[in-house]
Formats: sequence, structure tokens, C-alpha cells
Amino acid sequence: MQLQFLGTGSGVPSKMRNVTSIALKLLAERGAIWLFDCGEATQHQILHTNIRPRKIEKIFITHMHGDHIFGLPGLLGSRSFQGGTAPLTIYGPKGIKEFVETSLRVSGTHLNYVLNIEEFDSGKIFEDSGWEVHAQPLKHGIPSYGFRVVEKDLPGALLVDKLKGLGIKPGPIYQRLKNGETVELEDGQLVQGKDFVGPAQRGRIVTILGDTLPCENNLELSRHANVVVHEATFSESEEEMARNYFHSTTKQAAILAHEASVETLCLTHFSARYQKEDLLKLKKEAEKYFPIVVVAHDFLEIDIPKL
Amino acid sequence: MQLQFLGTGSGVPSKMRNVTSIALKLLAERGAIWLFDCGEATQHQILHTNIRPRKIEKIFITHMHGDHIFGLPGLLGSRSFQGGTAPLTIYGPKGIKEFVETSLRVSGTHLNYVLNIEEFDSGKIFEDSGWEVHAQPLKHGIPSYGFRVVEKDLPGALLVDKLKGLGIKPGPIYQRLKNGETVELEDGQLVQGKDFVGPAQRGRIVTILGDTLPCENNLELSRHANVVVHEATFSESEEEMARNYFHSTTKQAAILAHEASVETLCLTHFSARYQKEDLLKLKKEAEKYFPIVVVAHDFLEIDIPKL
Repeated sequence: MQLQFLGTGSGVPSKMRNVTSIALKLLAERGAIWLFDCGEATQHQILHTNIRPRKIEKIFITHMHGDHIFGLPGLLGSRSFQGGTAPLTIYGPKGIKEFVETSLRVSGTHLNYVLNIEEFDSGKIFEDSGWEVHAQPLKHGIPSYGFRVVEKDLPGALLVDKLKGLGIKPGPIYQRLKNGETVELEDGQLVQGKDFVGPAQRGRIVTILGDTLPCENNLELSRHANVVVHEATFSESEEEMARNYFHSTTKQAAILAHEASVETLCLTHFSARYQKEDLLKLKKEAEKYFPIVVVAHDFLEIDIPKL
Repeated sequence: MQLQFLGTGSGVPSKMRNVTSIALKLLAERGAIWLFDCGEATQHQILHTNIRPRKIEKIFITHMHGDHIFGLPGLLGSRSFQGGTAPLTIYGPKGIKEFVETSLRVSGTHLNYVLNIEEFDSGKIFEDSGWEVHAQPLKHGIPSYGFRVVEKDLPGALLVDKLKGLGIKPGPIYQRLKNGETVELEDGQLVQGKDFVGPAQRGRIVTILGDTLPCENNLELSRHANVVVHEATFSESEEEMARNYFHSTTKQAAILAHEASVETLCLTHFSARYQKEDLLKLKKEAEKYFPIVVVAHDFLEIDIPKL
């Protein structure tokens, strides 16, 4: 599981930073990639990565501002042109369906795969056997959401050596014990699965927040996450401007990370006013309030190991 | 007057070529830039040129395929964000208004300038004191148009030395003669303006054709143009594929340029199958049928001098 930042700027693209898109690479876990937001030229950025568009299974949209959605029609079309046939689902706020469908229709774009578009409100917006995604509204000029991606806990490993030590030989009984059943051995002895299964493996939690002012849902979505991606459009010295534009500062993001007891804080969505040489300063601002801070740049990839 | 190619690929962007957009720079002539098509990431390409988005006065759209329009919403928004306040007019086929208005509305994009969107059919789609633009339908899978941009002839210069040689002194009479009037001098002599005005300066003609198969309107739009920009999606050896996809080959473009007696042929809109090393071959294919061929690449700028 890796996060790769495809665009780390806000509002308008610059030579240094594209507008927002983030790839959550779940290739080992489910053979898929999930995108979060898709600003203009996200497909161009992807050309410089190892991401194959056909592997993109889901696209989550935090909010409808152009710097987060204008890359969708082109990416969807190119994914088809380049041979993508697997279904793709877009989860976005109200309006995303009209935007995508209008763009594809007026441009005569035909997709060789099934495209689902789900407009969500809030709550659990996706669940299958291995994953859940929760969305909650944040505080921005227009409806903006954060996502909490939860990998379900994996059952613990069967303690094979312990079983063998007791003379219990491999066979269907191993699966039953792994399932937690109580099993009667040939000699009449009862053994309990829970005594032969190691601790469950904690699933990982990745929280990706849309554009936002500090708010309670930032905290709820971020609690105990392995990684929180938080916008830091402005330096802590520009808190008033951040408030006026419904954005956050480095300091606000770091305080959130501290309060939510997260592992790693990733800052992104920097205003075009900040040059490369300003990024270390932004990092240090955040580190005053939270120790593990990553300042994202375009194409940065971070690994999210199991703990 | 210069033409700068902002994207010279077809269908999908590659590392080497972006999708289509062409800038006609009329800075000396009217302090403005006109764009022809606006594929995704045109605004990104502009970051690497001296083009200021606020100077873009008109955008002409040849057809509605995504690789020619998906950059519009982002460019329009950024032009406003970056301080553009002068009105801008988009001329495009039916559907362009719905696409642009939907994109701006759902994304909450507010423009600080007046945006006009004119859906044209064919014929003269723009005229003012110095310029005319004509559109005619071409032959593609969906409605696709070519544009003939005509700079009106400029009146000839007043032959001041000749006037002075006859003892006619500068004054209001000079303007009357320049206007072609017949004027009575103080000594009763009649002089005619046409005898004191040099030849009119021929305006330039630039023809920019959308995606197309060979057709009669290609020829009509291109006659005696200084520059014709013609798609050459495929090599002459792929004529059947070109026909299947409603595109042209190098050879077809060159034959058109010959038949239309143009000055310079610019080839663009190359299939992603052609690498950098293939471009010389494409050029040579065209040169068998027409002598002056420019093979466009992203950011190429060509000057169009007065002849």
C-alpha cells in the first residue's frame, strides 16, 4: 500500500505543482489503484509514473472545484482508449454525475468499460470483504468531504508449530481451528481454535481530507489513522487568509494530527505563492505541533507498511 | 503574427506531445491571442510559453472531441484567477455552450470577465475592421470545422516623396489623397489620390483545419493561404486506417496544399504511434507532393510575415 501524490498545488497549476490528485496504490492488496480527486492533467502526470490507468478501480472526489475534477473526462476517455475494460466507479458529491456525463456525451466519448457514478451524502460509501470507505462533510466554500479508508483487520496466522508440537497433524482440522472452532481430537481431547491462532493483523487506515477549515469531522475521520493527508494551503502566518478562503494552515493540520493520534501527517495542496525553498519552512511550522510530517511534492510516493 | 503549437498529438497525450491547441499570436496586430482548440492541459503548456492567458481574446473550437476541448474549463478559470478581466469569446460547434456552462456551474467557477459562447453553423463567424474568420464543415466522425482567418488588406502607403517632388506640402490634403479623393490644388490643378498611394498591402490568410478526411471544403478554406495547418494523423502508408478513423495522411495534406496554392503547409495532430525519429519520414512523405512543409512539435513557433 502506497500513496503517490500526482498533484500538490491548489487552484491553478504551476510549473512545479499540478492541481490535486492522489493515488492510493493497492496493487498487492487488491490489484487496484484508487484515485482521490482528479484535477486537470492528472492523466498527464500519470504518464510519468508506473500507474496503468486500466488499474484504476475507483475515483473518490472530495469536492467539485475545478482543480479537483477537470481531469476526469480526459482520464476516463484515455483509460478506454488504452485498453481499459474493467468497471470503474466514481464516488463524488452531487454534481459529479452531471459533469462527467455531460462531458462524455458532448464529446462523443465512448467508454469500453462500465462506468458507475455514485453521488454520496455521507457515511459509509463503500464496503466489501476487505475494505470500507467512509465520507464525512468538512467545512469549505462548497460541500467538501474527507474520506477514511479502512482496511479490515486480517485474522491472525495459525500457529502451526504449536499444533505440531502437540502431535496434531495437518488436515481439515487446521482450517477449523483457524476459523476459531472447538474441535474434538481422535483421542477425545477438546482443543479451541483461539489457542492456536496468533493475534489479528490490524488493518491500516488512510484518511484523505478535502479542502477544509478546521472542523470536528477532520478529527473524527483521522483518529488513529496510519496516514492523514491534510491540505495546508497556507503558512501558519496566513491564518486569516486561510479562513477567508476556507482553507487550513500548516499549524492547524498539525494540531489535528496530534489530537487524532495519527502516525504520519502528509501536507499538500500548497498555494502557488510557496516556492520550493519555502517548503522546509512549512514543514518546520507543522513539526512544532506534530512530530512526523511529510511535505508532499508531485510524484512523491510513500509506503504505508503494516504495523 | 505567429503561430505557436501548444499540442501536436491526437487522441491522448503522450510524454512528447500534448493534445491539440494552437495559438495565433496577433499581439502586434491587435494586442491579442486567438486559440484554436483547447485540449486538456493547454493551460499547463502555456506555462512554458510567453503567452499570458489574459491576452487570449477568442477561442475557436474545430470539433467537440475531448482532445480538443477538455482544457477549456480550466483555462477559463485560471484566466480569471490570474487577473484576466477582458471579455473572451468562444466560437464552437453545437454542444460547446452546454459543456462550458455545465463545467463552470457545477465547479462553482466564477469568472471576473464576460464570457461569450457562440455556437456557429458555417460561413462568416466573425468580422471587424481588420479581420474575418470563416468556418466550413469538414468530413469527420462528428461535425468538424476548418477556419479561414483573413487579415483585411491594408491601404497602400502615401507616396510622400512624390507629393513633395510636385511641391505639394504636408497638410490635411495628404489624408484626402490617401483616402483616394480627387483634390484641387491652390493653382487649380486636379490631382488624384490613386496616383499618390502605393499598392495595397495584402492581408495574410491563415487556415486551420480540424480533424478531417480529404474534402472539398479543405480546398475552399485553404486557397492561397499563407499558412495551412492540416492534420496528418497518419503516414501515407496508413491511408485505409486514416479513412476508417476519419483522419488524413501526410500525402493527402500535401496534395491539398499543392492544389490550394498555399505558401506553407504545417502538419500536426500526429498519432501517438509516431516517435520523434519518425517525424522526418513524415515530412519527406509530404515533400514529395508539396515543397514547403513544417512538421509541428509542441511549442514550435512560426512567424507569418507580410509578403
